[in-house]
Amino acid sequence: MESQFYKILIQQGFSNDKAKTCADIFTSNSLDGVYTHGVNRFSRFIKYVIDGHIDPSKEAICKSHTGCIEQWDGQNAPGPVNAIQCTDRAMEIASTHGMGCIALANTNHWMRGGTYAWRAAQKGFVFIGWTNTTANMPAWGAINSKLGNNPLVIAVPYQQDAIVLDMAMSQFSYGMLDFYAMKNQQLPVPGGFTIDGNLTTDPDEIRKSERILPIGYWKGAGLSLLLDILATILSGGLSVAGISQQKAESNVSQVFITIDISKLSNFKTIASAIQQIIDDYHQSVPEKAAKILFPGERVMAVRAENAAQGIPVLKAVWDEILAL
Amino acid sequence: MESQFYKILIQQGFSNDKAKTCADIFTSNSLDGVYTHGVNRFSRFIKYVIDGHIDPSKEAICKSHTGCIEQWDGQNAPGPVNAIQCTDRAMEIASTHGMGCIALANTNHWMRGGTYAWRAAQKGFVFIGWTNTTANMPAWGAINSKLGNNPLVIAVPYQQDAIVLDMAMSQFSYGMLDFYAMKNQQLPVPGGFTIDGNLTTDPDEIRKSERILPIGYWKGAGLSLLLDILATILSGGLSVAGISQQKAESNVSQVFITIDISKLSNFKTIASAIQQIIDDYHQSVPEKAAKILFPGERVMAVRAENAAQGIPVLKAVWDEILAL
Repeated sequence: MESQFYKILIQQGFSNDKAKTCADIFTSNSLDGVYTHGVNRFSRFIKYVIDGHIDPSKEAICKSHTGCIEQWDGQNAPGPVNAIQCTDRAMEIASTHGMGCIALANTNHWMRGGTYAWRAAQKGFVFIGWTNTTANMPAWGAINSKLGNNPLVIAVPYQQDAIVLDMAMSQFSYGMLDFYAMKNQQLPVPGGFTIDGNLTTDPDEIRKSERILPIGYWKGAGLSLLLDILATILSGGLSVAGISQQKAESNVSQVFITIDISKLSNFKTIASAIQQIIDDYHQSVPEKAAKILFPGERVMAVRAENAAQGIPVLKAVWDEILAL
Repeated sequence: MESQFYKILIQQGFSNDKAKTCADIFTSNSLDGVYTHGVNRFSRFIKYVIDGHIDPSKEAICKSHTGCIEQWDGQNAPGPVNAIQCTDRAMEIASTHGMGCIALANTNHWMRGGTYAWRAAQKGFVFIGWTNTTANMPAWGAINSKLGNNPLVIAVPYQQDAIVLDMAMSQFSYGMLDFYAMKNQQLPVPGGFTIDGNLTTDPDEIRKSERILPIGYWKGAGLSLLLDILATILSGGLSVAGISQQKAESNVSQVFITIDISKLSNFKTIASAIQQIIDDYHQSVPEKAAKILFPGERVMAVRAENAAQGIPVLKAVWDEILAL
């Protein structure tokens, strides 16, 4: 999979380094079971390159800095390459200042925020990052979409790996609605409204009303708004409103914050403090037989399974990639 | 109200400065309509002082620092005093480093997180802060409480005031359940589970099962866990699990992050960027007649109303305060 991605990216004018980075990220996301932002998304990514929304000849550049904050211009270079660069730079800054913050304007979809969170946390850093998106979710009480689902990612090192929370502000993505609709299933919890304004678990009804639900109703709507404001003002880039005025979702704004916990006075006790929290959490009494998992725990299991048995890919998806 | 609070706090051994700070905060929270963490909470606050959980003779001290991060020990001094001190210190650090982070261990309930967010944002800073709490919410899929509701607060300057998101990780607090139960009303959306494990809007059923709902189900549960881990490891203080082993909710851990936006290269355009986002947000088409409000917008209206007409207080609440 990785070599096929690499070959196509080189054909599309990506440099060797950028092709390697993107091929690795699309493959790793698939290995981790995040197919929506891995193999299933690759063809659309290439379409964005062909259509000129993603410019593989460009890279992110630092516009200005103050203390532990740097503002970067992504120049609409490939989103995953920009995000890797900013994550690594944020860690460099944190190594000097304890904490580092990169605010990135004019970048493209980073695919899976977890990619950068795992990367930083596996190197011993706390990671807090988010992106804005095109408008795809109504404010609480509204019928038209003025908010992005603005995914927020938080990670901490754990054992040899990481605890990674990677969550959009919508309860379900439209991709997930399609997935349930395809299987003719109801959502496990309400995911949006019917045309008549009633909460529903029916994915088709929500696709009709285009009213997906923010997590926690008014709360997730509020968090989405604040994340957009922060990404916009810290980066000097476009807001959800600005992104939504474009033909395609590009020129998005992102924030990458890292903390170098090795610099903290209590560093030697941090691993055991996290372990104690997880041990206590795992003592949760489950309602059903299933073990209560922490964010990212299922990903680790899928990663091990796919590494052993191979990454499952739909034939239609792979055929489309081979035809690129 | 403020002078009555002040008088009681002085009687309880608070210094003049600490009594002023606490009297101001409890009064301001009431003025803003946050009675649960204002006048309605004052008697319980004094009880915590009498019972020795809050030590008015102490204050927070800096234990260590690295770059833009400082670790403080709150010494179980009054929570609002500690939180004001850490907010102000975080702003000082941000003025030098662009960003400042104070992690505070061994503090007490800060009452309303919004207090510190308004304070920082009105002075022109971005504020991101959170606290852990005693365990009061089950993990997703669990029946016993291993998570705190760990309120998260994010604020940005807006016009002469601020946009302030102040949200716990639970959909409703137990205080809010009591409020609906008292009025014999159903919750507007499901707030937890029945004993049988069904989602319900009935506050009494949730009080019986003690299974309040995290915002966004598994998502808010995950965010609660990560906020607890971060507060614990950054401060070197107690986690939700540790706090829950005590007789009362003290020795909590908090994080205060501020960003000095006046240091950013795009500072001159930030106010208009925020205004554009809010203008677009306000163009949301409401389902009902009500205007779509941003986080904190209703607080501003209540503040103006209470300033003009006085703060409404239940007679029983005020009688209890007069008897202290």
